[in-house]
Amino acid sequence: MACIAMLGYGVVGSGVAELILKNRGKFKKNLNQELILSKILVKNTKKHKDNKNSDIMTDDINEIFKAKVDIVVEAMGGLEPSYEYVKKALNLKKHVVTANKDLIAEYGCELLKIAGENGVTLQFEASVGGGIPILKSISECLVGNEINGIKAILNGTTNFILSKMSADGMRYDEALKLAQESGFAESNPESDVMGYDAARKLSILSTIAYDRRVEWKDINITGITDIDEKDFMYAKQEGYNIKLVGMSRREEGKIYASIMPVMVREESVLGKIENEYNVIVVDGDAVGDVVFSGKGAGMFPTASAVFGDIIDIIGHKRTSPLSFNDEIAEIDKYWSSEDRWLIRINTSNRLEVIKNISANFKMCHIFSNSVTGDNGNEVAAFVKASDEKSLNNIIDGFLKLDGVEKVKKILVMDR
Amino acid sequence: MACIAMLGYGVVGSGVAELILKNRGKFKKNLNQELILSKILVKNTKKHKDNKNSDIMTDDINEIFKAKVDIVVEAMGGLEPSYEYVKKALNLKKHVVTANKDLIAEYGCELLKIAGENGVTLQFEASVGGGIPILKSISECLVGNEINGIKAILNGTTNFILSKMSADGMRYDEALKLAQESGFAESNPESDVMGYDAARKLSILSTIAYDRRVEWKDINITGITDIDEKDFMYAKQEGYNIKLVGMSRREEGKIYASIMPVMVREESVLGKIENEYNVIVVDGDAVGDVVFSGKGAGMFPTASAVFGDIIDIIGHKRTSPLSFNDEIAEIDKYWSSEDRWLIRINTSNRLEVIKNISANFKMCHIFSNSVTGDNGNEVAAFVKASDEKSLNNIIDGFLKLDGVEKVKKILVMDR
Repeated sequence: MACIAMLGYGVVGSGVAELILKNRGKFKKNLNQELILSKILVKNTKKHKDNKNSDIMTDDINEIFKAKVDIVVEAMGGLEPSYEYVKKALNLKKHVVTANKDLIAEYGCELLKIAGENGVTLQFEASVGGGIPILKSISECLVGNEINGIKAILNGTTNFILSKMSADGMRYDEALKLAQESGFAESNPESDVMGYDAARKLSILSTIAYDRRVEWKDINITGITDIDEKDFMYAKQEGYNIKLVGMSRREEGKIYASIMPVMVREESVLGKIENEYNVIVVDGDAVGDVVFSGKGAGMFPTASAVFGDIIDIIGHKRTSPLSFNDEIAEIDKYWSSEDRWLIRINTSNRLEVIKNISANFKMCHIFSNSVTGDNGNEVAAFVKASDEKSLNNIIDGFLKLDGVEKVKKILVMDR
Repeated sequence: MACIAMLGYGVVGSGVAELILKNRGKFKKNLNQELILSKILVKNTKKHKDNKNSDIMTDDINEIFKAKVDIVVEAMGGLEPSYEYVKKALNLKKHVVTANKDLIAEYGCELLKIAGENGVTLQFEASVGGGIPILKSISECLVGNEINGIKAILNGTTNFILSKMSADGMRYDEALKLAQESGFAESNPESDVMGYDAARKLSILSTIAYDRRVEWKDINITGITDIDEKDFMYAKQEGYNIKLVGMSRREEGKIYASIMPVMVREESVLGKIENEYNVIVVDGDAVGDVVFSGKGAGMFPTASAVFGDIIDIIGHKRTSPLSFNDEIAEIDKYWSSEDRWLIRINTSNRLEVIKNISANFKMCHIFSNSVTGDNGNEVAAFVKASDEKSLNNIIDGFLKLDGVEKVKKILVMDR
């Protein structure tokens, strides 16, 4: 018998409880184990008094720690008190499964070390890509590869908002409101729309892929709050869609890592991922590009991944559990290869700006409505820059021109 | 130290040898193991006398069995002598890793049983989808799910041929010749183009997914040899592409399973998989659709999967190794849901046939060149049939009409 205690009974927690109930006898044959959900920590037991699991609920964490428990499932989210509870559970030699990317991005290295010292495992497949089997695929199946790079859409909320802006021509604030009403965005959407959530997930993925700690705060993060209808207008004119893309790449001695809105071809793998779906493209030196996609969040997709981790632990599959390398990676925040960018320049001095664009870029495609003035005080162009730093220098030059107020840039990804 | 012996040194074998050499020291830290390739079985040692691995090559299988070997990698392909060698290795309590789908589709159940009896494991991730981590994902990560169905493109050779027919308007025989010249098809392409290779892979996938033995010979198999330019013409007119699709589905008491050319929407996940790429879409009841894609064959993609299996064994990850259920699944060969089909009727009696089509199907869209006769003695239509059996009955009726020589059907998949 394997006894499982759960911390939290929200969307993820109740989904996991349901999967455990449904599958409890399934592993008798193979693992000679029956799964028992023995305790659930909730904030307020009274609130759940009519729930079928109410008899195993408690609001006292010490009851969990005192009980005979083999695996603790942390399904509370956030950093406090999850961090303290998980640390304590590991120190009490209980295995831990969590879906909490904030926790793993912030304290993964420390917690994995504590797990190792106590001879237990800490698993967190659900923390990235929801139900998509991505962490195990990278750390086990692709172990013979050097991972060269990762390209991914990791946040369902922003992907939902951008999908609505793209397909239905919604404004950002309209799409955000719809996302909130449909349960795809929280009332405080900051962590999603600012790109922090995606950055945490990219940091976990990259830390495993490159075997060096990629700290999420070191990543170059740009959210989607500044994306407007005109960005989509320019994108569509050229056959592109706009997505919040997480990218990281092994470079000489460094790791490039960013979260930013990127123009991707409409018919590309990333361009076609809609709404709450996630996609992760892993480029391994032996295997080439492998694409994983599926629902990146939600009750049962997340529970599916948590449940896989539980069975992994019961089957004692990881005799050499995952650990994060202590060595912190040096992060390159600037896109280093020659690529095209959309630049949009707000200016009262259109003709001067157009002259400057032509002078500064070997290749540029200035949108015709910038020339005619049909688009107001804005000049927009696709330009090719040798790298992001040199583009930034050119933009700094534009900003010094009379009448230039603001310059915006979006990477165009053709590969 | 983990000693590995390899049977065969063709494309897969030499790729695995290279990955072992490259990664030999990588696992010292984590697994406290060094990987050593200690023996290689080849047909003719003289042929390899200048090879860097020539000193560990032998043409005597008994040398392999006598040596201190922990893991045998079978990279010969085919059924004989692979089957005998693998059986013997397992009985000698050596773990076996293979990329051989023929072997696993034919003898997987027996060999897994022998492995279990001897306390060793038999792993075969590379046998389906090349470097795509699909078997482990289904059997471990998605273990909390009932798998409802699988849709997949599993054969790179046929996908290459169909891609060339679609993109470049090639005839089947031209595309096959190009595939052979480019190394994507063998000189005897039967196993690929007749759909047998894909059927073996679908049988392995389905056996794991539904925990019942899906015998490949029970699958309804239609190859691509009958696909011509006109099929692509009709497909494109309506926004479809044609792919050789493997599909299986859990049904009441039965499993539906087929390999057949299917019209898929050009912009769909399956419709966009080109050339040697594979894709597998797994529908789990908790996780929903999860998509996996990547290179389905080739030296290093295959070696990547074989290598992952080797490390799995060294890390003793599978205390409860995969086994195939003994119970043979009853296979439903007929598509049971209401869908559209392309039918093409070769006839000298066009008007009569058109009248019959209209009379027999609630919904039909007869191609206009069938009416005008611009397309010769052929009537083509998209028709909606309640299921495949009833469609077959209607087709049987057509075949009894005067002047009808041949009727061809292709499923149209809109979902």
